[in-house]
Amino acid sequence: MKVEFEKVLPGEIEKRSFEIITEELDQKGICLDEKLAPVIKRVIHTTADFDYAESLYFSEGVLEAAEQAIRQGACIVTDTRMAMSGINKRTLAKFGGEVYNFMADEDVARIARENGTTRAVACMDKAAQIDRPLIFAIGNAPTALIRLYELIRDGKIAPKLIIGVPVGFVNVVFAKELIMQTDIPCIVARGRKGGSNVAAAICNGILYGMSDGR
Amino acid sequence: MKVEFEKVLPGEIEKRSFEIITEELDQKGICLDEKLAPVIKRVIHTTADFDYAESLYFSEGVLEAAEQAIRQGACIVTDTRMAMSGINKRTLAKFGGEVYNFMADEDVARIARENGTTRAVACMDKAAQIDRPLIFAIGNAPTALIRLYELIRDGKIAPKLIIGVPVGFVNVVFAKELIMQTDIPCIVARGRKGGSNVAAAICNGILYGMSDGR
Repeated sequence: MKVEFEKVLPGEIEKRSFEIITEELDQKGICLDEKLAPVIKRVIHTTADFDYAESLYFSEGVLEAAEQAIRQGACIVTDTRMAMSGINKRTLAKFGGEVYNFMADEDVARIARENGTTRAVACMDKAAQIDRPLIFAIGNAPTALIRLYELIRDGKIAPKLIIGVPVGFVNVVFAKELIMQTDIPCIVARGRKGGSNVAAAICNGILYGMSDGR
Repeated sequence: MKVEFEKVLPGEIEKRSFEIITEELDQKGICLDEKLAPVIKRVIHTTADFDYAESLYFSEGVLEAAEQAIRQGACIVTDTRMAMSGINKRTLAKFGGEVYNFMADEDVARIARENGTTRAVACMDKAAQIDRPLIFAIGNAPTALIRLYELIRDGKIAPKLIIGVPVGFVNVVFAKELIMQTDIPCIVARGRKGGSNVAAAICNGILYGMSDGR
């Protein structure tokens, strides 16, 4: 871990960061799947946490499914404003998609209160009304993942992809295990770690893999 | 790490999370300073990463200085939209403060290009023009911290607090070490880890400690 100043041009910082990540993965003897590596490395770049090299789960063919959905104009639904902020919306827009987040909506707050659920649950119900192909990027609320599981089971929604990376201590591991049991394409950070930044990094990792010049 | 479902009411999830964090810190034999504990636990809550129990550095009297600045209407400058999104702006507004982020400003992009710097550097220069007490919450760009160091050294800015928690691989450790050498009150995540989520969590930890009912 270098403490000395390293002269790197502004436009080269990200490239140099990825070089360092690649070198250190090699040193640790971790060999990533070639197709998945850019997404995994982007998460490590966002967190400086090499645990993700081993905790990220990708369902079979998930990147191909994600790319196809994005090319068909899929929109991304997040469970936080932070994740929404972090996603490169300009790159997504090239493919016709946009990002939705309903957490600050008044009807969401009211319905959550009436039903005794989290707002994240009410957001998933609201998203289920959208008649467009959807990708869910869940970086915060395990309750959102549990609700998604129920909506899928009941045939009320069929997401093109679930990025299930909530962080935390209450029902986080449980919720992630549920999502991995569905047959929906998914990327999950097993264990407690994750976050809105991780959710956004995975979205961007997929988008940058599809797009030159972002 | 529990995999089974734990029944917790929506309004109780955060409280339960903090109980689990407190229990596990005890089990690990980690004893936090009583005054700093709420902020450290909020970072662990945001990341599920107990490394922060040992990596977070607080300069002497920093929380008192931060609280005093916020009571005097200090504003928070962030280096990402994500950090801005994550800060509880309603609670900050109770004290008269607001959050600034200049990353998407056209003049920032232009000046950064002209000067061959990162946009984060140009943002710090722009922030130095603001005639209000300022707190800097830097979760992404070490170049922002390095520029802050230069502005402080040259007497061009005197922040009330620097939250120096950029994440990454290029000059991140170097930049954090620089900030810890100043006499500006600071909270720093030593090492490579950090992030916009961590920067926001520290801001919120301070704000919630000052405010009942958020």
